[in-house]
Amino acid sequence: MPGPDTVFFLSDYGTADEFVGVVHAVIARHAPSARVIDLGHGVAPFDVGAGATMLERAVDHLGPGVVLAVVDPGVGGSRRSVALESARRDGPRWFVGPDNGLLVGAVERRGGVALAVELERPATPSTFDGRDVLAPAAAALCNGRPLDALGSAVDQASLTRLPRPRMFEVGSPGRAAIVSEVSWVDRFGNVQLAALPGYIPDALSVQTVRVVHSRTGAVLMDPMPVRRVGAFSELALGELGLLEDANGHLALVLKEGSAAERLAVGRGSDIELAGRSDQPPFLGPHGYDPR
Amino acid sequence: MPGPDTVFFLSDYGTADEFVGVVHAVIARHAPSARVIDLGHGVAPFDVGAGATMLERAVDHLGPGVVLAVVDPGVGGSRRSVALESARRDGPRWFVGPDNGLLVGAVERRGGVALAVELERPATPSTFDGRDVLAPAAAALCNGRPLDALGSAVDQASLTRLPRPRMFEVGSPGRAAIVSEVSWVDRFGNVQLAALPGYIPDALSVQTVRVVHSRTGAVLMDPMPVRRVGAFSELALGELGLLEDANGHLALVLKEGSAAERLAVGRGSDIELAGRSDQPPFLGPHGYDPR
Amino acid sequence: MPGPDTVFFLSDYGTADEFVGVVHAVIARHAPSARVIDLGHGVAPFDVGAGATMLERAVDHLGPGVVLAVVDPGVGGSRRSVALESARRDGPRWFVGPDNGLLVGAVERRGGVALAVELERPATPSTFDGRDVLAPAAAALCNGRPLDALGSAVDQASLTRLPRPRMFEVGSPGRAAIVSEVSWVDRFGNVQLAALPGYIPDALSVQTVRVVHSRTGAVLMDPMPVRRVGAFSELALGELGLLEDANGHLALVLKEGSAAERLAVGRGSDIELAGRSDQPPFLGPHGYDPR
Repeated sequence: MPGPDTVFFLSDYGTADEFVGVVHAVIARHAPSARVIDLGHGVAPFDVGAGATMLERAVDHLGPGVVLAVVDPGVGGSRRSVALESARRDGPRWFVGPDNGLLVGAVERRGGVALAVELERPATPSTFDGRDVLAPAAAALCNGRPLDALGSAVDQASLTRLPRPRMFEVGSPGRAAIVSEVSWVDRFGNVQLAALPGYIPDALSVQTVRVVHSRTGAVLMDPMPVRRVGAFSELALGELGLLEDANGHLALVLKEGSAAERLAVGRGSDIELAGRSDQPPFLGPHGYDPR
Repeated sequence: MPGPDTVFFLSDYGTADEFVGVVHAVIARHAPSARVIDLGHGVAPFDVGAGATMLERAVDHLGPGVVLAVVDPGVGGSRRSVALESARRDGPRWFVGPDNGLLVGAVERRGGVALAVELERPATPSTFDGRDVLAPAAAALCNGRPLDALGSAVDQASLTRLPRPRMFEVGSPGRAAIVSEVSWVDRFGNVQLAALPGYIPDALSVQTVRVVHSRTGAVLMDPMPVRRVGAFSELALGELGLLEDANGHLALVLKEGSAAERLAVGRGSDIELAGRSDQPPFLGPHGYDPR
Repeated sequence: MPGPDTVFFLSDYGTADEFVGVVHAVIARHAPSARVIDLGHGVAPFDVGAGATMLERAVDHLGPGVVLAVVDPGVGGSRRSVALESARRDGPRWFVGPDNGLLVGAVERRGGVALAVELERPATPSTFDGRDVLAPAAAALCNGRPLDALGSAVDQASLTRLPRPRMFEVGSPGRAAIVSEVSWVDRFGNVQLAALPGYIPDALSVQTVRVVHSRTGAVLMDPMPVRRVGAFSELALGELGLLEDANGHLALVLKEGSAAERLAVGRGSDIELAGRSDQPPFLGPHGYDPR
């Protein structure tokens, strides 16, 4: 059975070195008719969580193919290289990369892991598994090689998972708030929150935003007004807005400006969205307040 | 009738996010046999003029295909998404993007707009029209779908056009000069002017260059000597040259150095090229001096 | 005879301009079925040595095809454009670029130059030979055009070669050391030396590293301890290691950190690796000490 013809490739290799090009070349050599679509190589070095977040955002838009992802601080060490099969048949069916949490979130978005194998380790440890182990595995899948021929099955429960993003509710009489981790700041300075719109209780009409310390909960700035909108165009220039972004997440945005700069936040910061509420103070679904 | 097999893609998406990769994936999903050639994604965020300039420079070198361009500060608002057909049959025949001036200059370089349609608006406004509206339209054209099936025709005169670049002549007895806006500074620091070589009157032998304020005309530096040359190789190291560049524009260059740094200019600065002239002072073809 | 279907493209064009995209478009126009794999365009402007180093590292991993490389401070001048044929039939057989030392090292890694031709010069000098001369030549080779139809043969001995990297041994009774130029610093801060592991004498057990001035030999820092390891995983966080990297070179590395930052070195710096030796002081195979 022929395999897919597309490899979707994401890494933290950057573009100053020849790493990305060499991986393309290796795939072309092993699977000449496969094409490679770069999902991005600008992930901060070793930032596994950032790579996982990018994959989760992208995965629903990908057609049939193999996802090859490499953000790999443990290269050459004891961490496993894995290939995962998603439970869904549309979209990308296979995911190849290190077993460090980079892949699992995206696969779970696609129906979960149907099968997982550990790729064979190279005889001598390499500092470039992307070239020597992972790209050949992705190419083999394009060539129709079955997943279980690439290595031995591993228990899905043993796969490394990343911690869930911080997200919780806080409140006091007449005031309610949610706190959410910032999952991404994009090139335009839009601040994507880990929280989805449904995480805001119906009773909470968001009026202000402030940044809080992600460990202590200490307030890092005075509250700023924010307005819930459906599109950028509803905002005045310089007005801070809260909208549902193209990935279905809550995002803080500024029309033709950088909300991240305005708020002085980055990936991993914690944001509090607060407003009046006629409901009694509540503790949210996560049922905890780490502060 | 089959459509073209190539999409030429330009945007201000940058490469730190997965936006470019997702657009590639969407095109691959809708038009599996199309290939995508990236014309560049480093346009400064929201700089429609820069994107238009890049397209105008590139367009004569493109083969058959669809140009997909996205620099779109008004995404999700009232601005239209359009697909334009060029009057010429060689080169790229279709241009897809926002109706904000990004596309028209390039199409006019290719014989003008033969047909323009407004793409159907998405039911809910999106912050990612590149993925949700424009890429599917480009893919549809690759699949042979006729332009007028993508939306309703619009009057070409209604298309948004960018202001023409500043360019005018100034002079006093015995001295003549032209002023031109800087249209681009490339990676090597070459300073491309909006002016073409033919814009310099025959009677004007350029000897000096200086930077002038683009609104007030105030002189921002002492004049520097500059020499008209045919190639970099005619220059000594450190010598400022004026040549016709690979796009047919006048450009200020420094051999193995950055003319932009030397002159402290960027895109949008105004440059005055002056020299002796035996002709009486003149007002040039544009017939105006905004200062 | 059909030519190869892949062009491997490396340049110092960067990604802020449309240069790379236009070269892709020109290749697509001349050789519609060729694909282009980007080896990287982040070479520092005009740094021919950096481009050559990237090519040498990449070349063994490339399949059949044409290497197109452009780092070209002399564009438009008297330097020749050349196309070289490698003596080996596997891997990339042709190399197209300026005759300034960029290509020869990679071709010599592939069995040496079997044939060299000078490409025809354009009638008027261009500032964009990559688009106007080199890309069309690469495309012609993809179209099966024989090398000797692209220009006139030139003597291989006349090809420009880069100087060999600095590398030598130094020593005093009971202490031995090698000095090697830094050939690359990658995105992760790994410091690749020009020296291969075999360059370290058996009698020398490396214990310390220091940076020396590349012209005077003056010592620029106190020696730092370094440990020879087989993989990143053997290092403690913050410990400096010396390993054989994925290109077979010696490299100084820091686990999940930047060795280049720690040592404050870049490409072209000189590194001394020293240790105890029971052998008498020696002068190494290069037999010279430039200091």
